[in-house]
Amino acid sequence: MSEMTIIEAGLRALAVETASWAYANSGTRFKVFAQPGVPRDPFEKIEDAAVVHRLTGAAPSVALHIPWDRVADYAKLADHAKQEGVKIGAINANVFQDDDYKLGSVTHPDPSVRRKATDHLLECIDVMDLTGSDTLKLWFADGTNYPGQDSIRARQDRLAEALAETYNRLGEHQRMLLEYKLFEPSFYTMDVPDWGTSYAHCLELGPKAQVVIDTGHHAPGTNIEFIVAFLLRANKLGGFDFNSRFYADDDLMVGAADPFQLFRIMHEIVSAGALDPEAGIAFMLDQCHNIEPKIPAIIRSVLNVQELTAKALLIDASALAAAQENGDVLGANEIFMDAFYTDVRPLLAQWRIDRGLDADPMAAYRQSGYDEKITAERVGGEQAGWGA
Amino acid sequence: MSEMTIIEAGLRALAVETASWAYANSGTRFKVFAQPGVPRDPFEKIEDAAVVHRLTGAAPSVALHIPWDRVADYAKLADHAKQEGVKIGAINANVFQDDDYKLGSVTHPDPSVRRKATDHLLECIDVMDLTGSDTLKLWFADGTNYPGQDSIRARQDRLAEALAETYNRLGEHQRMLLEYKLFEPSFYTMDVPDWGTSYAHCLELGPKAQVVIDTGHHAPGTNIEFIVAFLLRANKLGGFDFNSRFYADDDLMVGAADPFQLFRIMHEIVSAGALDPEAGIAFMLDQCHNIEPKIPAIIRSVLNVQELTAKALLIDASALAAAQENGDVLGANEIFMDAFYTDVRPLLAQWRIDRGLDADPMAAYRQSGYDEKITAERVGGEQAGWGA
Amino acid sequence: MSEMTIIEAGLRALAVETASWAYANSGTRFKVFAQPGVPRDPFEKIEDAAVVHRLTGAAPSVALHIPWDRVADYAKLADHAKQEGVKIGAINANVFQDDDYKLGSVTHPDPSVRRKATDHLLECIDVMDLTGSDTLKLWFADGTNYPGQDSIRARQDRLAEALAETYNRLGEHQRMLLEYKLFEPSFYTMDVPDWGTSYAHCLELGPKAQVVIDTGHHAPGTNIEFIVAFLLRANKLGGFDFNSRFYADDDLMVGAADPFQLFRIMHEIVSAGALDPEAGIAFMLDQCHNIEPKIPAIIRSVLNVQELTAKALLIDASALAAAQENGDVLGANEIFMDAFYTDVRPLLAQWRIDRGLDADPMAAYRQSGYDEKITAERVGGEQAGWGA
Amino acid sequence: MSEMTIIEAGLRALAVETASWAYANSGTRFKVFAQPGVPRDPFEKIEDAAVVHRLTGAAPSVALHIPWDRVADYAKLADHAKQEGVKIGAINANVFQDDDYKLGSVTHPDPSVRRKATDHLLECIDVMDLTGSDTLKLWFADGTNYPGQDSIRARQDRLAEALAETYNRLGEHQRMLLEYKLFEPSFYTMDVPDWGTSYAHCLELGPKAQVVIDTGHHAPGTNIEFIVAFLLRANKLGGFDFNSRFYADDDLMVGAADPFQLFRIMHEIVSAGALDPEAGIAFMLDQCHNIEPKIPAIIRSVLNVQELTAKALLIDASALAAAQENGDVLGANEIFMDAFYTDVRPLLAQWRIDRGLDADPMAAYRQSGYDEKITAERVGGEQAGWGA
Repeated sequence: MSEMTIIEAGLRALAVETASWAYANSGTRFKVFAQPGVPRDPFEKIEDAAVVHRLTGAAPSVALHIPWDRVADYAKLADHAKQEGVKIGAINANVFQDDDYKLGSVTHPDPSVRRKATDHLLECIDVMDLTGSDTLKLWFADGTNYPGQDSIRARQDRLAEALAETYNRLGEHQRMLLEYKLFEPSFYTMDVPDWGTSYAHCLELGPKAQVVIDTGHHAPGTNIEFIVAFLLRANKLGGFDFNSRFYADDDLMVGAADPFQLFRIMHEIVSAGALDPEAGIAFMLDQCHNIEPKIPAIIRSVLNVQELTAKALLIDASALAAAQENGDVLGANEIFMDAFYTDVRPLLAQWRIDRGLDADPMAAYRQSGYDEKITAERVGGEQAGWGA
Repeated sequence: MSEMTIIEAGLRALAVETASWAYANSGTRFKVFAQPGVPRDPFEKIEDAAVVHRLTGAAPSVALHIPWDRVADYAKLADHAKQEGVKIGAINANVFQDDDYKLGSVTHPDPSVRRKATDHLLECIDVMDLTGSDTLKLWFADGTNYPGQDSIRARQDRLAEALAETYNRLGEHQRMLLEYKLFEPSFYTMDVPDWGTSYAHCLELGPKAQVVIDTGHHAPGTNIEFIVAFLLRANKLGGFDFNSRFYADDDLMVGAADPFQLFRIMHEIVSAGALDPEAGIAFMLDQCHNIEPKIPAIIRSVLNVQELTAKALLIDASALAAAQENGDVLGANEIFMDAFYTDVRPLLAQWRIDRGLDADPMAAYRQSGYDEKITAERVGGEQAGWGA
Repeated sequence: MSEMTIIEAGLRALAVETASWAYANSGTRFKVFAQPGVPRDPFEKIEDAAVVHRLTGAAPSVALHIPWDRVADYAKLADHAKQEGVKIGAINANVFQDDDYKLGSVTHPDPSVRRKATDHLLECIDVMDLTGSDTLKLWFADGTNYPGQDSIRARQDRLAEALAETYNRLGEHQRMLLEYKLFEPSFYTMDVPDWGTSYAHCLELGPKAQVVIDTGHHAPGTNIEFIVAFLLRANKLGGFDFNSRFYADDDLMVGAADPFQLFRIMHEIVSAGALDPEAGIAFMLDQCHNIEPKIPAIIRSVLNVQELTAKALLIDASALAAAQENGDVLGANEIFMDAFYTDVRPLLAQWRIDRGLDADPMAAYRQSGYDEKITAERVGGEQAGWGA
Repeated sequence: MSEMTIIEAGLRALAVETASWAYANSGTRFKVFAQPGVPRDPFEKIEDAAVVHRLTGAAPSVALHIPWDRVADYAKLADHAKQEGVKIGAINANVFQDDDYKLGSVTHPDPSVRRKATDHLLECIDVMDLTGSDTLKLWFADGTNYPGQDSIRARQDRLAEALAETYNRLGEHQRMLLEYKLFEPSFYTMDVPDWGTSYAHCLELGPKAQVVIDTGHHAPGTNIEFIVAFLLRANKLGGFDFNSRFYADDDLMVGAADPFQLFRIMHEIVSAGALDPEAGIAFMLDQCHNIEPKIPAIIRSVLNVQELTAKALLIDASALAAAQENGDVLGANEIFMDAFYTDVRPLLAQWRIDRGLDADPMAAYRQSGYDEKITAERVGGEQAGWGA
């Protein structure tokens, strides 16, 4: 097969889901720098997401975050998406921004807070029903800041109970993804700190519960592609929240900090056949564009996923397997690196032209006038951010 | 000497400086949980700081943060402090919260932004003049998020220029402390990421520039007491921003995450004679009490510094030196640990009683009614936080 | 209950298992510093272990490492242990020191190497049968150094196969403990890098397979007590390989680097009732005394486990639970820290005297003349080390 | 300028120094896997180094390690190198393998051990005189394993004294490079743990003392290119010990773990004009080829440095500067990444052909028969390793 044929086959199904909140303002605890033209409501967020999809041809869905994207009429929102050419992706629950949640949500010592939090999770499934989303994504900020503050084990019991109730509410074609995170905003314990914890709960819950890997949520030195391979083998990988990081949960553009790592991750996906939509792996972005303009940053991120996936597709699988079997350490590594060092950008430009897209989506966006348009039009109202 | 004599001599001069902003609301990028009774202006912050000093006898000064603590009449603020029994400590500059500073302050590519930032640093020296503070504390959020975003080296040139101008404005009895931080809010480079960078700039600037160590600003595995010892030997340690952490810059109460580390740090201070006020080491707290009540958390922190210092004072220095000289690894370690495992709390309780203080400052605060008072009185207005 | 009563009840069953190889020479890749008096064979190692037990009353078993402790007559070795007053503990397999294992043992691409490695694991069960040991401890150095070198997933398949065969060979009252390690000696992937991987395999294998936690085998920032709590709740914790570290797998004396962490770990054990021998948790040391004399270092380590366990026992569980339920962050933390800061050494000295032991085992060892004796007697022959 | 012209100009002077000990056996503390054909003496090591240079045209010097490469007649060794087409590079001192050095060398509490260690450093300058080497490279394993074991500060005093004596012995055209390392083999403190420590000592010593950066010797998250930029600006960068790592000091082939990092490092070199030999930056390899064949691994490493340097040379410096000045975060990053993603291998193949080299040095080595030759010939004697 030619390189082009391989890439075409591989990328045909690659869909990167963008996140509604990434089009909104974000920042650090030190400062949120507002940007001009930022959406003021979920409808405008979807319009921005649609631009990304029109230019890349690879971002057909957009995830929502409840309550940030709470609307009176979810059917109308889903319809708006459809008209814009995208669909509603995962519904992300948010149980970390009410004052009640200071010491936890589903793991809070107070049963009434747990009830409230679990009810919110159930509400998110309602939103799934209304928008046609098939995926509930759960991330819990729950944890403690000080040794002794609460019982690690009791919190696991409470977590398991809330997850079970939520799981049981899922419809036949719905699933839940359980995210993990090492730290932040809790600084001593997180109640779901690592993939093992998420995996164990998902296993207990059943086949509709799967682990989601946020690439920025690990301890230094963690080998993420190992986790990918392990979960694929165990049939428990639900998807990714892509971003990149140098230190902690930096939420930079995916592929920006360590493109070789993204390549290695996508190699595990490719070699397990998990690019196939049947595998059900959701490739989602979860990033914060604190200082760079948001829409082009998201386009760049989609392209990065595409490019590194294309490189991974070019690995000569049979030659690699032969070298591995022979214990040829340098030979196997060389085959691996050869694909990484291949410049796939001309192939991808052609791939876009073949699909009626602009060969260079970044340039196309700059020339589209969309940025000037939203800057001019989105005046007044309140810009969307993490708080609303 | 009896243990009590040793501790009395050592603690006589130990002054822990609390931070005005730690009495205000703080949080993570995910949520700031407001607390009842939080001060609404710098005067109320000083009143809280005074409570901490009255109960502990060891927190006689309070640091300000400009512009968070900007007032029309700084002399009045200093006078208020004096009447409350405390004094104004370090003046902390803030060049990270204006929209102009999105890509940096003193290292920004645009000279007009650099001018503005440097002018703010000079303004802070004005505040020092007006409040009688002798210490300017500089921390820069400056840095970049993406490789290639800016020239690492050019930013150093700009930094050096701004520091030099600021240094030259210092009065005869004023000094500047240059803080460093590995990451956050910048995620690829920080312009002053480590002690080496701060040290090199301070050396170039002159004797009035010194390094300040924030105990939460290091890479995993960094041996902080080594830095303490090294800077003391080089006569370039200006002080500490104390807090504790399990992961990144968690800003938990000092001593809460790793009390043994605090003990080791204080051992370096003690063994270099740097508890002596002549040594000019500023022992400052820089913490975020996101989920715990602020005033008692700060009392607890002051007590932690006292307790671990007392333990460090109890190390049998001559026995330790002898064991070290003999290469007796286990013996030296045992002498060291013996002091750490000694329960100094009864001695410190007596120490307080001797000074007319309550033996248990935490209990005394609970019984003082102050918490109920501020909760009742500080209604209306806007609570202070990092944004105001 | 008095503190003494609490400690007596708690420590009654605390047995720390020492490791035969810790009495032998060890070092880093840069240098092994030989020490005088080091054992030359497994019999002498057991004699040293017996000394530790006689002095502490808390180290009744000694783990073996095969082939380092391979002998012609295992029954004789077990009998020797019995006469010395100790028994044989866990049997540790070693599949990392033959030239065949350069690219792996049970996960090697070559089936004949896998066969050899698995046969060794089975041999270790034979040794268990012969020595009366009920525990097989498995640690695999297996992994890769370079991306692409081998298939992460295929290696998991091979691992699972070898584990299953070994599991099936276990006798009715035997169990296997599966250790994990983040890195070293493999530097890109380890085939069992984290607790999640070990847990997943053990779950699949069955109730006789459990996870063992080596406290030095984690990524920076990992919260070990969370893992302890989680595995206890899941009934999958088999025991510990205790040691301490500042950076990587430093293998220092347990409690030396971060005594507060050891306290937190033992709190999870205590609060789950897992000090009870019925819980089946093996408290083993796995340390390298590279520069300090070995026997006293091991005595010190046993004492550290005892002391930190005693502190954990003193936590006022009902007061803690009440504070936790009330969301009293500072109150709960204060109860927790109160126990940590209590000096338990006088209580433990009394505890020893009550049992006919010397109050100070470290001093007792120094005065025993044992060190002089072995230095004089163990001359000639080849000192034991990791290679033999 | 064409890409080829740029690369030719940039690579003309790029000389990668290989290390004599990398041709010898190495391993971890768990096992050294011997390889066939490994040199048995310094002469054979030089022959292997010469092969690497003949095939790459870019490795004209080889570093020695004393006493591993101690010979009776150094002039003869230098002459052998010359005849083989290479020259002697840096002389590396070794003060960590004598039994005396268990607790340190130049920082040891015992003055007689310090004397011995310093004498060895002076001996290395003798070797420089005899071999024509102009560079002394110092790395100290010195440090402590346990808190309290020795005085951090006293050890700095001792270090400074030994460095000064050594510095004063340097000839007019000789220099010393001071290496730093976070940890291993010492696990609590290292006496030169970070670049700041090395920098401070070098500054005190004078212009002939410079910092050398081993890319594997940093804490997790350290931004190495920042250090490069900073030291170049301060005129204190002497060179690199190149290798790569995922976790600690893994000593893998440079560029293997994170090629993008190597690119960023070389960008700092290129943009400071420090590829120019006048800049005096030594580009040295310091790696351990534990499981892969050594000579081809070293060839691969030289190629990696060349390739990533070539990519760095292709960065459009003026476009980058313009984007940086405009604060165009995404634009600047895109220019930066464009160079990284360019496949320079065809250009480098042509570059080699133009110089009479084989286009593919890896293949050329495989076909050369050298491996078969040394495997057949180097039989008997003792293979070189770290111990000899």
